Amino acid sequence: MDDFNAGKPAALARVVSIVENHRDGFEEILSDLHPRTGRARRIGLTGPPGAGKSTITALLVKRFRDAGLTVGVIAVDPTSPFTGGALLGDRVRMESVALDPGVFIRSMATRGSLGGLASATREVADVLDAFGFDRLLIETVGVGQSELDVARTADSTALILVPESGDSIQTLKAGVMEVADIFVVNKADRPGADRLRNDVELMLGLRKGVSFGNVPAHHGIDLKRMNPARAAREAAAAPSPAQWTPPVLSAIATKEEGIAEFVAALDRHFAYLEQSRKLSARRRERLRERVMDIVEQKIRVRLWKDTATMSRLELQLPSVEQGRSTPFAVADELLRQSGELVSGEEDK
Amino acid sequence: MDDFNAGKPAALARVVSIVENHRDGFEEILSDLHPRTGRARRIGLTGPPGAGKSTITALLVKRFRDAGLTVGVIAVDPTSPFTGGALLGDRVRMESVALDPGVFIRSMATRGSLGGLASATREVADVLDAFGFDRLLIETVGVGQSELDVARTADSTALILVPESGDSIQTLKAGVMEVADIFVVNKADRPGADRLRNDVELMLGLRKGVSFGNVPAHHGIDLKRMNPARAAREAAAAPSPAQWTPPVLSAIATKEEGIAEFVAALDRHFAYLEQSRKLSARRRERLRERVMDIVEQKIRVRLWKDTATMSRLELQLPSVEQGRSTPFAVADELLRQSGELVSGEEDK
Repeated sequence: MDDFNAGKPAALARVVSIVENHRDGFEEILSDLHPRTGRARRIGLTGPPGAGKSTITALLVKRFRDAGLTVGVIAVDPTSPFTGGALLGDRVRMESVALDPGVFIRSMATRGSLGGLASATREVADVLDAFGFDRLLIETVGVGQSELDVARTADSTALILVPESGDSIQTLKAGVMEVADIFVVNKADRPGADRLRNDVELMLGLRKGVSFGNVPAHHGIDLKRMNPARAAREAAAAPSPAQWTPPVLSAIATKEEGIAEFVAALDRHFAYLEQSRKLSARRRERLRERVMDIVEQKIRVRLWKDTATMSRLELQLPSVEQGRSTPFAVADELLRQSGELVSGEEDK
Repeated sequence: MDDFNAGKPAALARVVSIVENHRDGFEEILSDLHPRTGRARRIGLTGPPGAGKSTITALLVKRFRDAGLTVGVIAVDPTSPFTGGALLGDRVRMESVALDPGVFIRSMATRGSLGGLASATREVADVLDAFGFDRLLIETVGVGQSELDVARTADSTALILVPESGDSIQTLKAGVMEVADIFVVNKADRPGADRLRNDVELMLGLRKGVSFGNVPAHHGIDLKRMNPARAAREAAAAPSPAQWTPPVLSAIATKEEGIAEFVAALDRHFAYLEQSRKLSARRRERLRERVMDIVEQKIRVRLWKDTATMSRLELQLPSVEQGRSTPFAVADELLRQSGELVSGEEDK
């Protein structure tokens, strides 16, 4: 780890590989690095395939580098040029970025069932954070449950949309709209861009209409009046605007238009997170999920890599097939016998 | 359950809702129904957004109905007309299907984190299977890890592609190509259809080149010669072609062209599964995964709905934030204390 601590890129790539593949020692590495995490700003970029996420990612990298910031990029998108699925022009653009020693790019392969995609992304992000990168860009396609979970791991999440995918809002996984802190309508010079912006703003308006911060009455009850102490605490905790209204920006990435505004919006959102103390709340939530994730992963490894458990399961399958037992009955029996295995007490 | 057993559609809808939302009694219902599952053929349809999966699904439904078969449809695709994201023409087509009492359509919403999408789909499929549907069509978008897991729950999986999405093969999640038993190039009258077919066949050729059934030598070693008893067993078990070569079909769904061929290919694939005894192998694998899934779900519920566990976790978070502890250390501590909780022995 000395080379890693000395900031050597080859050591970084090695450590990322160990962590990504959960090779021996990954747990110790992540534990060692843990105290050094929390300095990088994590920015998620999501959207449908073809929205121009990778082009925008490359332009953000350029801006951050111009500002003297180092950048880590994690691409979880199968259509990303970083992962190989790209047109030649994109690839060239990425390569010029990739040759910069202040930039580290990692594309994530699909993870097996014992770990999750979001979990793996978070672990790699922690490594890059501890290494000292100022900004982490996490690019993921906005369709799919695991991919949505990836977007949730960021401090700020931007949703990139394009007019082409006419009903692109509809094609997104339910929940993606709710995750986004910033909307970017890319290819804004194409027909339908205005309509798309309107649609997004309409949806945001609806969202605003039902949220607590903007309307004093909730189901006809004024929550703040009912609990004045809580209202006062909340007001003190949030001297800045208590509510973030996601901006709907326009961009033409191929002409590098709208990128400065996007960077400015990201800065504004981060300042809002800090001032409203929502940053620490988000990060605590992330930590909570992280611990729960590790618990679940460890249980899966302990159970399903245990040959005794697996042969008990195997022995029961025929009777389940014949309808004499049920999956639930077998599961209960496995659970009854696995307490010590799960708690790790069998090791003693 | 009497109404369900009597085949009443309203009872079916009610039971599906209980199971889908894991409401009280869902476990008993699924256990009761378990012996009656296994009769329906489960057909998965996957592919990128805009490939025409829903149109093809509707046409399959029509064919099956014409043949006197009842059909259950589970749509896990956010872009599916069944889930609301559709053009008007599609919706009308779906509605004519939906009015048929021999057809039951269910669109699946996103599942919370305690259950998975694939798991929820499987449970609903089990209900429809036990109710007596002859065919189950499971429609899912082919981007995303959870969605890929959904496709894996079927007996036969078809991948629907279109020329438009030029590099549509590349945009698919790694692994989708491997899951497909049948390929359908839809909108086959559009430019690029031939190239797409060639690309798919090329990839299939590569796949064939490395598989065991077609080449006697594996890493230079003739496995069949090394184990003649096994080779004889395999030959006896598979009097029909020992290897399935996924057909690459053409279709123009809007003109109802190629659908009869698709249905025929599905029948051929099912016959192959039965004759080669791969059907029982697939279904046993599905059952194994199902039990593992239930075990994991029960553990999650037992741990994360336990207030004592959650407050132990909450108490530890500040020290993790301050770098005095790590997520792994907290996870280990939670695990040590949770053996009896997981095994269910605390209930006694």
